[in-house]
Amino acid sequence: MISITIIGSGNVAQHLIKAVSKSIDLELVQVFSRSKESVLHLVPNEKIISETSLFKEANLYLIAVSDDAISSVSHLLPFNNKLVAHTSGSVAIEELSNSNRKAVFYPLQTLSKNKEINFKEIPLCLEAQNEADLKLIKQVANSISDKVFEVNSEQRKSLHVAAVFVSNFVNHLYKIGNDICLEHNVPFDILKPLIQETSKKIELLSPNEAQTGPAKRKDSQTINKHLEILTDQNQKEIYKILTKSIIDNDKKL
Amino acid sequence: MISITIIGSGNVAQHLIKAVSKSIDLELVQVFSRSKESVLHLVPNEKIISETSLFKEANLYLIAVSDDAISSVSHLLPFNNKLVAHTSGSVAIEELSNSNRKAVFYPLQTLSKNKEINFKEIPLCLEAQNEADLKLIKQVANSISDKVFEVNSEQRKSLHVAAVFVSNFVNHLYKIGNDICLEHNVPFDILKPLIQETSKKIELLSPNEAQTGPAKRKDSQTINKHLEILTDQNQKEIYKILTKSIIDNDKKL
Repeated sequence: MISITIIGSGNVAQHLIKAVSKSIDLELVQVFSRSKESVLHLVPNEKIISETSLFKEANLYLIAVSDDAISSVSHLLPFNNKLVAHTSGSVAIEELSNSNRKAVFYPLQTLSKNKEINFKEIPLCLEAQNEADLKLIKQVANSISDKVFEVNSEQRKSLHVAAVFVSNFVNHLYKIGNDICLEHNVPFDILKPLIQETSKKIELLSPNEAQTGPAKRKDSQTINKHLEILTDQNQKEIYKILTKSIIDNDKKL
Repeated sequence: MISITIIGSGNVAQHLIKAVSKSIDLELVQVFSRSKESVLHLVPNEKIISETSLFKEANLYLIAVSDDAISSVSHLLPFNNKLVAHTSGSVAIEELSNSNRKAVFYPLQTLSKNKEINFKEIPLCLEAQNEADLKLIKQVANSISDKVFEVNSEQRKSLHVAAVFVSNFVNHLYKIGNDICLEHNVPFDILKPLIQETSKKIELLSPNEAQTGPAKRKDSQTINKHLEILTDQNQKEIYKILTKSIIDNDKKL
């Protein structure tokens, strides 16, 4: 049984709390959260602490707070030489305090509080500074996910940028599609099968093989018509640069 | 039994040929294609024609050729007062020749030759110039798809632009994600669960509710780190304008 304390109460923290609680190989020791209310639906009251003096012994302390708070939170921990991991895609392992052994436990997924998710399907990207610690976080990772990867800080940073493109930015393109539909009084639902098929294609074809559309066909007549329809300046700019990028990409092939 | 002739041999034509051939309510009369070879695996040789003089009688002629060829192809048809529909999202119904009755039969989906698709799931956007013709193309549409919508030319044009954002541009963002992974020696497969989850979320949450990431959090430290990692100029520009658009959008709320 590996004992774990989770620090934080946001999206990632809440999904980790659920995953750890469910696992028969893991024991949730405590949750550190400044606002008890935000995790009371997940953890018994006596396990929630708001003061650093109340930390109990655990095999692993998981810091799941916002990126810019990771370093300062790690420096507030009142103990030494314990294993402390952060859960961020974009923060280097070095940013953790030197007082403890450092690791990274990064779930590469888009986690929303209002959407349940099967944690088994979430890729976990791990990094540690010695073999014993890596072994321990691997055990933890394997007991909550089927997709465990060892990824160093450099690789993790680039994965995080790539993730912004394929998830955050993709979702914003859905938002723009929705806005265009609203503006022209057509139901966004007509587009949903297309959205699903576009993501499914990527399981079978490379993104290059899967590319279709006016930019791919260099169909300048359609491209110009589309630019006339768009009234929002950001939408126009996004249309132009993505079209240019698709065309430039084909030149390189 | 409604009889149909399909003009064209590209992606859309091939998927329509398969869907019409499968339906027990529809009869595929002929396929007009300049290159017989491209459809020989789908249609018996005697049904494929390459000369306009060989057209037989049909209830509906479906023009599934590239957008810029639709008008000229419709003018080459040697008959009058038949029902002729094009299958494009971005071409107005008026661009069809006045010699025949006009309609639009637009499958809103991303169709790749190498990827099978369940046609029943494809939204078909229909337009016709009189009730009888609309009724006929609705019958055809209902016999190959479960998702049939009546959409006028204005709405169809805006739908097509929206489709470019949520499909063609989304796929290009997958391409960029893949390129970043290749450059930094991490498997693109780590990102696939994230890609699937991002598209699934849209079935339950609005794109606004589903938005996460550094731009949403206005996390300028992470944004700047990401811009440093990106070396490709187009990638940098795309990152900047999409980040700006996400931030501007939140100002409007």
